[in-house]
Amino acid sequence: MGRSSIPEPVTAVSDLAGAWLPFRLQRVEERLVEVIDGHGERLAAAAGATLAAGGKRMRPLLVLLCAGREGGEAAINAATAIELVHMATLVHDDILDDAPLRRGRPTVVAAAGRSRAVATGDLLYSRAFAELTAVGSEDQVAALAAASVALAQGELAQRQDAFRIDVSAERYFRRCRLKTAALFECACVIGASRPESEREALLGFGRQIGLAFQLLDDVLDVVGPVERTGKARGTDLLDGTVNLPLIRARDHDPELATLDLRRLDGPAAERICDRIAATGATDQVRAEARERVERAKGRLREAALAEGDRELFELVADGVVERYS
Amino acid sequence: MGRSSIPEPVTAVSDLAGAWLPFRLQRVEERLVEVIDGHGERLAAAAGATLAAGGKRMRPLLVLLCAGREGGEAAINAATAIELVHMATLVHDDILDDAPLRRGRPTVVAAAGRSRAVATGDLLYSRAFAELTAVGSEDQVAALAAASVALAQGELAQRQDAFRIDVSAERYFRRCRLKTAALFECACVIGASRPESEREALLGFGRQIGLAFQLLDDVLDVVGPVERTGKARGTDLLDGTVNLPLIRARDHDPELATLDLRRLDGPAAERICDRIAATGATDQVRAEARERVERAKGRLREAALAEGDRELFELVADGVVERYS
Repeated sequence: MGRSSIPEPVTAVSDLAGAWLPFRLQRVEERLVEVIDGHGERLAAAAGATLAAGGKRMRPLLVLLCAGREGGEAAINAATAIELVHMATLVHDDILDDAPLRRGRPTVVAAAGRSRAVATGDLLYSRAFAELTAVGSEDQVAALAAASVALAQGELAQRQDAFRIDVSAERYFRRCRLKTAALFECACVIGASRPESEREALLGFGRQIGLAFQLLDDVLDVVGPVERTGKARGTDLLDGTVNLPLIRARDHDPELATLDLRRLDGPAAERICDRIAATGATDQVRAEARERVERAKGRLREAALAEGDRELFELVADGVVERYS
Repeated sequence: MGRSSIPEPVTAVSDLAGAWLPFRLQRVEERLVEVIDGHGERLAAAAGATLAAGGKRMRPLLVLLCAGREGGEAAINAATAIELVHMATLVHDDILDDAPLRRGRPTVVAAAGRSRAVATGDLLYSRAFAELTAVGSEDQVAALAAASVALAQGELAQRQDAFRIDVSAERYFRRCRLKTAALFECACVIGASRPESEREALLGFGRQIGLAFQLLDDVLDVVGPVERTGKARGTDLLDGTVNLPLIRARDHDPELATLDLRRLDGPAAERICDRIAATGATDQVRAEARERVERAKGRLREAALAEGDRELFELVADGVVERYS
């Protein structure tokens, strides 16, 4: 990476933006706590750990940033709603993957069981729409609903492709657009209404950094380091998820295309990770992620942003690929 | 019951209402097919069976009826959205209960696995909001979001109360209001805007028939007959759900209060059902359901309905307790 210290994107962006952005991010954090505490001890117990474990809050950051200084309450509301949808999908995804830990803490499914985890995800998800309809516009609700449809479709696509070692890069990118990029796109346009051309540019920005975000996630799954990412290397392989580093590595090491992912255990998955990295595929995918970030910056130039704002957006875009968790 | 033939509520109501109601119900049915077929073969394969298995379509019927003859497209849209939410909860509930069959057909979880069932429910749920935001108003979306929050809270409450043989009637009714009545209430007000007093009356109507609906479901779970309900007697007991007949039966047969539901198998559950029925509790709960229907009709009188419309509403209300599935 050539960097010894990676800035936490939120911190770096907040420093540059001045007081308004950290103040609003704090408001979102408080609102998330209110929503989760305000629905009885059941939700607080089940989802409180997910909330307390924090996260990068990339999506709320994008909402607030794209809404701008004049964003106001509607932007805080939208940022809260979008993080609730994101949290709901994490809770449900962890059921599907039978994941024991997320961000170093027990998942809802591990702590409270499958049944409660399904219902907790449903509740977070419903709360997102309730939050948004409290002060939001029809356009905002429509945008979040469309993104949620895409997320669920992406999840279905991932399940359908699971353990298919020969899945194409084209299918991979289609799945990423649904499962990851759609919510980033939504975050970029849901906070405030803008003229059509700016909206299009921000959608494009969101899509590209969403894809870059996923590509870097894939790289971190292969190379770690575990003490930074907080999860074992090769988790994707063990879940049957054929990620882009593996797809690219198949071109260099064709034997990888004959792997049976169903037969892997943890140590075997780590050995496959080493083999993928040895082909240079992780460097290649990291370069692809950086290239997506450049495309994202290109789309930004189509939006009529103030010079100071552009710098903020670019910092966020860089933060997507300059991270370890 | 004193009746040899139970009218299918939809059919009877349609006969009375004339052409407009069956025509609109048909539109809802077509719209459901479009939504499910329009989201790729994955959703069609997973949810198609749920759709094809049909159902009573009680909630869309209520939406259309409460919206009235002048309801138009917004009512059809709302009716479709509410049935999609209902279908989503069925798909998720079947995961929690590990249910093999629903309406005599394999559940999504049985046919496609847990992972795909979670994602399919999420997709149906997201589609509901997308459907509603396409032509709906903010009030409609807010109503559906609030009902969805209640549904998920009710599901969490049910999980928390599972296998607690001493759960109180008060907790039972609180859970029913969340898990069943909230969506009936929503159905009664989401289709059209009305003056505040009428809206309140219709909400009350929806709540009471929602509770009556759940009480009758509980009775059918205990007494069957299996060839009409399409599921084994005692399914609630096996899921750890302490229903109202059991709560009422405890008063007459205190030994029932010492049952360990975790140790039941199918035949044992049927024997408990016989014992519950022998106390007279199922007749008692059936009477409570009828009493709720009368309360519902009482609330109706507060709404300024045309005489012909009142008759329709009363027929729907009666249909809730005069059924076997």
